[in-house]
Amino acid sequence: MRKVYLAGPEVFWPDAGAIGQAKRALCAEAGWVGLFPLDNDLAVDGLAPQAVAQAIFDANIAMIARADAVIANLSPFRGPGADPGTVFEVGFAHALGKPVFGYSVEGGSLLDRTRARLPLTRAASEMRDPDGALVEDFGLAENLMIACALAAPMVLPQAGDAADLRGLGLFRRCLALLGLP
Amino acid sequence: MRKVYLAGPEVFWPDAGAIGQAKRALCAEAGWVGLFPLDNDLAVDGLAPQAVAQAIFDANIAMIARADAVIANLSPFRGPGADPGTVFEVGFAHALGKPVFGYSVEGGSLLDRTRARLPLTRAASEMRDPDGALVEDFGLAENLMIACALAAPMVLPQAGDAADLRGLGLFRRCLALLGLP
Repeated sequence: MRKVYLAGPEVFWPDAGAIGQAKRALCAEAGWVGLFPLDNDLAVDGLAPQAVAQAIFDANIAMIARADAVIANLSPFRGPGADPGTVFEVGFAHALGKPVFGYSVEGGSLLDRTRARLPLTRAASEMRDPDGALVEDFGLAENLMIACALAAPMVLPQAGDAADLRGLGLFRRCLALLGLP
Repeated sequence: MRKVYLAGPEVFWPDAGAIGQAKRALCAEAGWVGLFPLDNDLAVDGLAPQAVAQAIFDANIAMIARADAVIANLSPFRGPGADPGTVFEVGFAHALGKPVFGYSVEGGSLLDRTRARLPLTRAASEMRDPDGALVEDFGLAENLMIACALAAPMVLPQAGDAADLRGLGLFRRCLALLGLP
């Protein structure tokens, strides 16, 4: 059976296990095996924190390496951009030639999502954040390095969609893009 | 001459060209060729925004592929975490087996930097952000996927350092870690 790695900040959610299970069930319906980071059964008892981190890192990397594709939850995380751990995994998977599909529960472009959180100023045709940093404006849903790495445009909520704060509907649409295993 | 890719949010700074030049000069002093994304001479006149984004993406990816190593500015960017474009490049370079060194102009752990920006609540031994997401606490300077990918611990300001808001002193310390080309 072909396998898809489930990248996203869900590992930090209070009900991480349940959401991982829900995603794996949706994968199974679509004929795929979903690989969720918390499914790694790590023997970390008694290890120092940094050794635990290294064990999680090694296990996640190995999981991505044996996956045939990745679906990444790229919803805003503590700011306008996606969870950095997830973004790292998108870059890692892309370098290995794995197709990566992404979704965000918040629609619009990166510029829209940045403007919703930070006061921006316009200088000529450019928008800048409070630190003076340019907010790129290519009409893409994320930083261009992420948006251009995706195998299809990022999946975003559409007008008329039911509320989908946890993104399972968007995740299903990514599974459909992934196609038959 | 061996080459080091200069990843970071400097491409968004108002004086991006000057900071790129300063970093390349420091690389040359250390015997390395610094590859700065904006040095790619792209023919994008008249292209649609998304085609421009794709051209930048392709050029950056090619630059990383021909680099022998990466130094990444992982300072907080519009929130507690590093610039997502830079994080993507760290993941991409790590998958290609390139040694990646990183620095941040703000010291402390990821937990410290998150606590400085967001009201956190403690539930048992765990810290959670206003969305209920766990703030990982491995004593690392970034999300573990980034921290564990680095070839050396992230370079951070030390007590007694002169102010280094643009991080060039930290960048030099990364060059020293990189060693002789």
